[in-house]
Formats: sequence, C-alpha cells, structure tokens
Amino acid sequence: MIKLLMHGCNGKIGQTISRLLKQHDDIELVAGVDPYLDLPNPFPVFAKIDECDVPADVIIDFSTATAVKGLIDYCVSRHIPAVVCTTGLSPEDIDYLKEASTQVPIFFSANMSLGVNLLIALAKRATEVLAGSGFDIEIIEKHHNQKIDAPSGTALAIADAINDTLDHSYNYRYDRTTVREKRPKNEIGIHAIRGGTIVGEHEILFAGNDEFISLTHQATSKEVFAVGAINAAKFLVHKAPGLYNMEHLLDAKH
Amino acid sequence: MIKLLMHGCNGKIGQTISRLLKQHDDIELVAGVDPYLDLPNPFPVFAKIDECDVPADVIIDFSTATAVKGLIDYCVSRHIPAVVCTTGLSPEDIDYLKEASTQVPIFFSANMSLGVNLLIALAKRATEVLAGSGFDIEIIEKHHNQKIDAPSGTALAIADAINDTLDHSYNYRYDRTTVREKRPKNEIGIHAIRGGTIVGEHEILFAGNDEFISLTHQATSKEVFAVGAINAAKFLVHKAPGLYNMEHLLDAKH
Amino acid sequence: MIKLLMHGCNGKIGQTISRLLKQHDDIELVAGVDPYLDLPNPFPVFAKIDECDVPADVIIDFSTATAVKGLIDYCVSRHIPAVVCTTGLSPEDIDYLKEASTQVPIFFSANMSLGVNLLIALAKRATEVLAGSGFDIEIIEKHHNQKIDAPSGTALAIADAINDTLDHSYNYRYDRTTVREKRPKNEIGIHAIRGGTIVGEHEILFAGNDEFISLTHQATSKEVFAVGAINAAKFLVHKAPGLYNMEHLLDAKH
Amino acid sequence: MIKLLMHGCNGKIGQTISRLLKQHDDIELVAGVDPYLDLPNPFPVFAKIDECDVPADVIIDFSTATAVKGLIDYCVSRHIPAVVCTTGLSPEDIDYLKEASTQVPIFFSANMSLGVNLLIALAKRATEVLAGSGFDIEIIEKHHNQKIDAPSGTALAIADAINDTLDHSYNYRYDRTTVREKRPKNEIGIHAIRGGTIVGEHEILFAGNDEFISLTHQATSKEVFAVGAINAAKFLVHKAPGLYNMEHLLDAKH
Repeated sequence: MIKLLMHGCNGKIGQTISRLLKQHDDIELVAGVDPYLDLPNPFPVFAKIDECDVPADVIIDFSTATAVKGLIDYCVSRHIPAVVCTTGLSPEDIDYLKEASTQVPIFFSANMSLGVNLLIALAKRATEVLAGSGFDIEIIEKHHNQKIDAPSGTALAIADAINDTLDHSYNYRYDRTTVREKRPKNEIGIHAIRGGTIVGEHEILFAGNDEFISLTHQATSKEVFAVGAINAAKFLVHKAPGLYNMEHLLDAKH
Repeated sequence: MIKLLMHGCNGKIGQTISRLLKQHDDIELVAGVDPYLDLPNPFPVFAKIDECDVPADVIIDFSTATAVKGLIDYCVSRHIPAVVCTTGLSPEDIDYLKEASTQVPIFFSANMSLGVNLLIALAKRATEVLAGSGFDIEIIEKHHNQKIDAPSGTALAIADAINDTLDHSYNYRYDRTTVREKRPKNEIGIHAIRGGTIVGEHEILFAGNDEFISLTHQATSKEVFAVGAINAAKFLVHKAPGLYNMEHLLDAKH
Repeated sequence: MIKLLMHGCNGKIGQTISRLLKQHDDIELVAGVDPYLDLPNPFPVFAKIDECDVPADVIIDFSTATAVKGLIDYCVSRHIPAVVCTTGLSPEDIDYLKEASTQVPIFFSANMSLGVNLLIALAKRATEVLAGSGFDIEIIEKHHNQKIDAPSGTALAIADAINDTLDHSYNYRYDRTTVREKRPKNEIGIHAIRGGTIVGEHEILFAGNDEFISLTHQATSKEVFAVGAINAAKFLVHKAPGLYNMEHLLDAKH
Repeated sequence: MIKLLMHGCNGKIGQTISRLLKQHDDIELVAGVDPYLDLPNPFPVFAKIDECDVPADVIIDFSTATAVKGLIDYCVSRHIPAVVCTTGLSPEDIDYLKEASTQVPIFFSANMSLGVNLLIALAKRATEVLAGSGFDIEIIEKHHNQKIDAPSGTALAIADAINDTLDHSYNYRYDRTTVREKRPKNEIGIHAIRGGTIVGEHEILFAGNDEFISLTHQATSKEVFAVGAINAAKFLVHKAPGLYNMEHLLDAKH
C-alpha cells in the first residue's frame, strides 16, 4: 500500500484526491499539509510541511508557488518522490526542481490532465496515419465566456504536437472569412468558441474523402487534474531520481 | 392521388425525387421534361415542356435558369401550381415569378432544404427563450475544402434570423484570437471549419450557466432538396394563387 | 425592481440563485429563509418563514417537502406568488398547492430546467415538420454510472411529448440486438448511456434521407434549475391566481 | 512512380480510386480489368485479367469472389503484389490467398477502411491509459434504417479489440432498461442507433471523473475503402512475400 502525503490537502483538488482515493486499494492518504486547518479530514493535517513526521512514499503537491521550495527541500532531505502540480512557478523554481531531481524523482508537467495528454498522443498518432492520405486537420476548442485568451494554451499545444509530426510544415489559420480561396492543404484550422460556463473542450477533426475522424476531450471541472496526479504518484513511487512528465507516464502504460 | 410533373427529371435531384416518391402513396410522378432523354424512367419524358400534354396537379422544377420562363408560361396557361427550385434566377426571372403568382400558386425559397429551414425556425424559438437568461450564441459550420466562401450563406442566414429575434442588437464575430478580452454579451460567434468532402453541417450552440443546448443540421448529399421539393408540392397543390416559401410550409405544419 | 424572498436560501441552488441574481437588474434578493444560519449572505436570513417580515413580490422555494405546506400558508395569507421547486411532494402536498392556486399564483413544474423544457418544445416542433417526410427518431441520453434507472425520466418525457404529436402511434425500442430486422417506421429508439460523472445529456436525432437534425441538451451541474426558477419568478410576479408551469412560461416568451 | 493495375476498375470504388489517384504523384493507374467495358477511362481496360499485358508493380482488386482465384494465379505467375479487397470470399479462397502469399506479398483485411482501423488502434491505446483510472467505456454506432443486424460488425470488432487490452475481463451490455442497478465496472455498453440513410458512424466514449474522451469515425459513403486500398498498394509494393493486413500498415506509419 502506497502511503501518500497531500501538500495542499484542503484546496478543491486536494479534497477531490482524498475522495477519489477511496476507490483505490493500492494507495492511501496518510497525512496532509495545509495552512487552513478547519476542514474535517480522516487523516492528520499539519499547518507546515516541516511539522509533518508521518512517513510517506510519495507526495502530491497542489499548493502555492511560494510553498514549493520548502516542499522540495523536505523531499530531498527525506528522499520522498514528489508530484508537483502547483502552477505559476518562476524560472528559478523550475531550476530548483531540476536540480532536486538529480537526487529524488520529481514529476512536473505543463498540463496534469491525463485525458488531455492522451488526446495529444492520439492526435499525433492519427496525424501519422492520415496526413498523407488527404485528411485536413481542424482544431475546435470551447471555453467559458470569462476566458480572455484565444485560442487556449491547450489548443496550441495540440497544434504544435501535430505539427511536430509534420516536420513543422503546416501553418495555423484562425479565420477563413477574410479571403476567398479553397482551403490550403498545409494548414491547421484553429477555432475558439466561447460561451456560458464551459470548463473546457478540445476537438481535433481529421476530414478526408467521405471519412471523418474526430477526437474530443471534455472537462466539466478543474478536478480532472486530481486523476492525473494520482496516476503520477503511482508511477513515480519506485522510480530512480529524475525529472518525469506526462509523456513518460503514458509511455509506461503500454 | 396528386399527379406530379417533374421539370428537369433526369438531373440528380430529379432522379432522387422519382426514387423517393415510391414511398409516398398520395402523390405520383406522371410525366417528366428533360432535354436529355437517355435515362430509363417509369413515366413518359418530353424534351420540351410545351410538348407535354399529360394532365398534372403540380410541377416541380429543377432545371436551368433559362428554362424557367417557359415553365412559368406553361403553368399560367394551364393553371398548374409550380415549385420552382432552380437556382441562379435573375431579378427579371424573379419578377416574372411574382407576376405569375397573382394567377397561379408559386413556391420559391432561397433554400429548399426542409431541415435547414426547420433549423432556422428552431434557432429563433430557442433565442426567444434563452437570450434573456445569459445564454451565449455561437454558430459552427463545416464544409468541404473546395468551398471558397466563408462563412456559408446558410450560416449567415441563421445568424440574421437569430438577430431579427434580438432586434438586430448583436454583432457577428469571426475570430477571437486578435483581442484579449472576455466574450462580449451582444455577439454571435460564427466559425467556418473546412475539410475533406464535408457536404454541409450547421450547429447553433446556446451556452448558459452549466446548461448547453445545441441544434445541428447535417446534409450528406445535395439530394436533401428533393425532400423539401416534395413537401412543397403537396403543400402547394390546393392553395390560392400567391408566392409561397418554406416559412409558409413550416407554419402549415402546426 | 422585483423583491424576491428565497425559501431555502442556504442550499446549493439557493446560493446559486443568489449569485446569478447579481447579473439581473430587474430583480433582487431581499430576504432568505433557512434553518441553517451559518452562511454569510448579503440579505437577512430567518430560521422559519413565519419569522420573516420583509415585504416580497415573489418567493422561490427550494426547501424540503415538509416545509412546503408552511410556505404555502404564508403565501396565501400575504398574497405572494410562489415558485415551488422542492421535489418529492406527496399527492396531498400537490392538492394543497392546487387549492392555494385559486387564491395566489403558484408555479410548479415536473422539471424546472428551462433548457430541458425548451428541448421538449423544439422536439415536438421538429416532429410535426419531419415525421411525415421519412425521418426516423432516436433519443440518446447519457448519465453518470451511479444512476440506477434507465432510461431517464426526462428521456421518457421527451419520447411521450413526441408521441403526443404523433397521436401516440409510435412504440419505444430500447434494444435492437435481439431481432434481425429493418428498423420499423413507427418506432422511437431510446438508448441509455452510462459512464463516469456525466450529470445529464439528452439528444434527439431526426435521421432522414441524407439529412440529419440533432437537438441536444447538456447539463453540467444541478444548478440549471436556478435559471429556470429565476425565469419562473419573473414570469409569475404579476399573474392572476392559478397553477402555472414551464409550458406557460415558454408560451409567454413568444 | 508506382504502376497500378486496377482489377474491377469500372465499379464504384474502382472509379473512385481512379479519381483520387490524380492527387498522388508517386502512383499512377496504368491499366484496368473489368467485364463491363463501356465507361470512358484514361487507361487501357481489358475484359479479362489474362488479356492484360501492361507491366504493373501492384494490383488492387475490387471485383467479385469468383474472379479472385484467377487474379491470384496472375499475380503469382508474374510476381506482382496484390491488395485483395473483394468481400464474400469462401474459406477455400482465403486458403488460396494464404498459399499464394508464400510467393508474393498479399494484402487482405476484414475492413479496408484506413479510418476504422485507426479508430480501433486509438481505442486500444486509450483503454490502456484510462481503464485503470475509473473510466467507463461505451460504444455508440449509427447506421441506416435498412440494416438488419445490430450491433454492427465493426462495433463488435472495436469492443473485442478493447477487451483484448483488458484481458477479456469485460462483458458487453446492449440494454440497461431491464434491470435497476448502478453501472457495473467491467462492462462495455454497446448501443445501436438506426435511422435514415446514415452510412456508418462509430463512437467510443471513455467517461471518467469530470473528464470525457470520445473517439468518432464517420463514413458518408462506401468509397472510404478506396483510400485504404491506395494506402495498402503503396505499402505492399516493395514488401517480401507474406500475408499483410491493416495492422501492419498502421504499424509502418510510425
């Protein structure tokens, strides 16, 4: 049974991880760290990581950027692998992670969603098979009406991954209404739909000769990162020191 | 049993109408007109409309713009209602239709697809109900990679119909990647996807607070106009002289 | 400005209504009633409805079945219209509502989602137009893996509404794998997909001759009832005494 | 430039292949064989394969089961690789293919659609990644109303491929309306939608914790086999003798 320490246990995702772990019989939450102590939890919670003396096999971190350095020191000194999911890290923080990863295994990924990373892997695979047979590629993403950037970072990450597969020979097109022309072949269309409270949806359409393949990922809450983090924790627990990400995790699932 | 004369019976849609009519027991194809006489048909075919002496209750026309005037003269002189589906009519042709419609019932619609016209009607109804409750409206259309115009005429017709319902207070937005901002409320997003051999797909998305309604029409061939024309013929057969379109037909189906 | 009293203000939907009302400038929440008093609210909250002396133009009720009778008495004595959204009412409770509705306007609907009720209305309209032109009708609903009933009550409500339009001449088919046969015409297929945490999705597919219309409603939380309730409150506030439901509300939005 | 001989060149798919090849600059159609000689073709056509003396690098066969044996003899005697796409072969025909494949490369696949075979490969990959993280799997297929079998052979092939990945531990469920119960974990739901003229659509839904991945293939004509056959011809042309199928082709596209 893997013993998990949750750094940032009283945040929304920390609580989701705690709830989801009840369905797992090979990993258990043995302790948490959170400055906010007021939530009832079925495990001991410490205000600071240094106060925690419960032995753990792996740590998941969903805290704040300022708390990550202390977490890393704790992991290195006790030789505990860490899944770092906190966002907004500075370049120095990331350098700190990299240095530490020579001593303990550290998992750090731009996007912690298992599904989005799988979607990207499937899109690359589909591109390898279909691009040479006249299939056009279009990406359609949907998000809530409060989002100020378009297209989404994930849509661009998908397009870049596809374009890697195509030797970066394709251009991105965001608007077709300004020119009258047939669709150029070497082009990935990217379309940003905005409306209501849509949490996040990404579709890649491969449109061929009377044949259409569509790969879609939909998230209905930010809690999807919890599933990715649990997977990462299980993946990381017996690894050698090093810096790991979602691609390594997916490769291990063959 | 309604007796139908098919003007342009050996074109693709004429042949589809002939095939579909086998499933109808209240209307039958009694004669056809077509300059190309080489197809086998289970009804007499005449090279020119003036040569046709088979009595008919209604005529469907899928011919060429130059043949329409002759058709109209035939209909007026014999008091036969006509469903005119030929595209590319000149303003004079349309004036000629209008004048004739004071003497015989004439059906003429910008888009003969029953489904697209229904889609527009449903979108207007949905807008009436949802627009006041914070739902954002986005239109997504998909067509083949040889189409040179974007967005499609149908997508614009849908947007215009929705905007009618909103007192023309909404703007159209084709691209969100050029400005960083939250989605403005009074806006209809219109997105043109292009790929492969897609015949035509239109979706209207109403995105609200954790609630999403999507209305979609997909055509997989141009033969969808055949169903619209048959409906129009049945609708027109006992009408008073006048100019009718798909909105009248839909209203009659209440 | 409509003054709203929220009966059950500290439940999940009560709090959502409070949040959503900030976007409305014609209705405001002036007071709440809830036995749990511990949430911070920008309006006075009373433990029992009888203790509330804040004047109100309309009441929305999301409480418990046992509290509804007291609410109705309060509404009748003060002539305040009530939107009753509490579920699990007994037949006697409903009789009590009906009696009261001779004195004050009362809104009560089997499903308080504006979107689902609109979906049903659109499906009926589409059936009127398409059923006579060879379109087959299939309903596909998706829900989470903990749901024990299939198909969903809403899917059956949609099927019944469609069948009303067809003079109840269609049968429902839940499984096509047991018989080898072409699809019978007078049939509505109903399919229950179950998986993960899907909150609720209903699609009605009209499949014709190379033409397909799909109407879809997706809810991503139970909070969709909040939007329906706010609409109902605005609708009800100046009505004559009577029992109203979502069909009346939709009719008023023409 | 690969020289292609088309066996069955005047059928629907033969003609599609001829049309599609105009977009390829590494393969050309140099001759055809077809008992029906009346179509205009930009290459010589022979009534019987034995009459054809045009040198070819590879043959695509879309003919009839009775013609396949003669084709194989021709290929063996001249050492020409063959892509056999004709359906309805008898067990003896298939044995004949296998024997011949010790001398020339032969391509033979249960389903010649590149897209469907890719879909199956992607579904297996997604299952490897997601099944251990609580994702439920549902397959939804849609076909026209004249199809008498349900579910489709392709839907079953998808389910079997997924179940292979799961050590055959999952059961198939076609109907959930007969029992009141939560969705069992080890189950693949399979749903057969029937309507109109739908050519064929297959969706695999992976439904998890607020995260949903959907993989969809849609065909709008039977001509999708043409793209698969062209790919197979290119793949086969320089191979060693042996029996090849779509899985080999997909593997080669890494």
